[in-house]
Amino acid sequence: MRFATYRHHHQSHWGMVISDPAGDRVAKLDHVAPSLKAAIQANLLSTIETRDLNTIPIDEVTLLPPIDAPEKIFCIGVNYANRNAEYKDGSDDPIKPSVFIRLADSFTGHKQPLIRPPESIQLDYEGEIVVVIGKAGRRIKREQAFEHIAGLTLMNEGTLRDWVRHAKFNVTQGKNFERSGSIGPWMVTADEFSAKALEQLQLETRVNGEVRQSDSTASMMFPIAFIIEYLSTFCTLRPGDIIATGTPNGAGARFDPPRYLKPGDVVEVSVAGIGTLVNGVMDEEL
Amino acid sequence: MRFATYRHHHQSHWGMVISDPAGDRVAKLDHVAPSLKAAIQANLLSTIETRDLNTIPIDEVTLLPPIDAPEKIFCIGVNYANRNAEYKDGSDDPIKPSVFIRLADSFTGHKQPLIRPPESIQLDYEGEIVVVIGKAGRRIKREQAFEHIAGLTLMNEGTLRDWVRHAKFNVTQGKNFERSGSIGPWMVTADEFSAKALEQLQLETRVNGEVRQSDSTASMMFPIAFIIEYLSTFCTLRPGDIIATGTPNGAGARFDPPRYLKPGDVVEVSVAGIGTLVNGVMDEEL
Repeated sequence: MRFATYRHHHQSHWGMVISDPAGDRVAKLDHVAPSLKAAIQANLLSTIETRDLNTIPIDEVTLLPPIDAPEKIFCIGVNYANRNAEYKDGSDDPIKPSVFIRLADSFTGHKQPLIRPPESIQLDYEGEIVVVIGKAGRRIKREQAFEHIAGLTLMNEGTLRDWVRHAKFNVTQGKNFERSGSIGPWMVTADEFSAKALEQLQLETRVNGEVRQSDSTASMMFPIAFIIEYLSTFCTLRPGDIIATGTPNGAGARFDPPRYLKPGDVVEVSVAGIGTLVNGVMDEEL
Repeated sequence: MRFATYRHHHQSHWGMVISDPAGDRVAKLDHVAPSLKAAIQANLLSTIETRDLNTIPIDEVTLLPPIDAPEKIFCIGVNYANRNAEYKDGSDDPIKPSVFIRLADSFTGHKQPLIRPPESIQLDYEGEIVVVIGKAGRRIKREQAFEHIAGLTLMNEGTLRDWVRHAKFNVTQGKNFERSGSIGPWMVTADEFSAKALEQLQLETRVNGEVRQSDSTASMMFPIAFIIEYLSTFCTLRPGDIIATGTPNGAGARFDPPRYLKPGDVVEVSVAGIGTLVNGVMDEEL
């Protein structure tokens, strides 16, 4: 099942996305719970009756990030093995993952433009697979990690490259420009994947149709189950929390010369079984 | 004026802290707004009538971090000039501040114990002055920064030292163990300080009565007004957002051998005009 959060006639809603030969449709579920996050929290997604729901074409709504105001958005740094090699800094593969935090305001939704701010021309894409937490837990064992996942979605973990190099310790600034990234288009529930399938998802990022990133979660140095175990060592993961699991090699900064995004570009992040997250690029209007 | 958030008879409240010769008292203000953050957002703090409020001794309540569930908690890394020297890594003074994010669950309140988890014995203190944002803004000029401050509070930015060294890029993990830090005891409104006073606050951290950190905000490489300008370049600061402005030298990790916190220790973070934040230390009960 696919669930989305969206705006329609200036109102926010959430609902189920339903396949149709003429194109996806969306059925409003506000009567079930006030938000997708609340429905996950109350464990209601599997109880939804879909027969008599009114639907409208998904193209008539504006998709928002599926989880409205997550409590936490964790991002894993270099995770695909090839990417560590790409950094060419002579470092060995890391023993523990890099972790940073993004804020909800740094994301827009499917088919909305990524915003390039006047402070930087180094807006870059990073295609990522995102885990949405379903069941709360602290010190979750990796063997149980799968039970704590509500579903999967996609992220373009858009980054202002020069602003991640402002200081010694971290990347917060360049990872948190408003609407520089994107989450969506929807969340696909975890019951559509086996634990083994999670370790063999094929991710592809395209810019203007050209493949820039292509790798499998099999290349992850820190598989999804490990990440859930690791993060929950220091904090309680809660329903609706978001974990972006890292990006493969091939981001624009790694080309020589770098190939940063510019207005008019179209970026697609695609994973079979989840969908394709599409975003244009726009200069910020001041 | 001082405002606090607290628990009394298993209920959360917020209120005003009132001086009394027999000890501070607290007056409940739930009728004004649902939370201190909501009252800041609606700009209600200056309108509060204090004459007919019932008060109880503050010792009868459990103080919580003054802002319940802030949208953002930014922390500035090395900011006091002496501290950069202390790192002895040969680096010049930084041009831009280090910024990382903490989560609300990583903090407890005044007089509650900091929790040392079983995963580390390197729990360390960091006394810090905290700005609470009052008025929303993006790209705030440093000359206008003062108008965006609702008030000041204190933080013990408790850190698990070995867990901040887990990965190349950042400090997220060791800065976010549950209840490893503390915020409080209350927020003092900005009208009690001139813009100039903010640049001359004297901060002191004591462990079991021994002074470990002592410096003035005059030593900051990045003064408070600059930090507000800088952070608001990439994101909209909103009412109730928290900015921890960095810690002076003298954290336990900098001693040889290091002097980490252990159960039974008492840490005090003190600034004249704000107050003293006191926390014990306890091993986590599993």
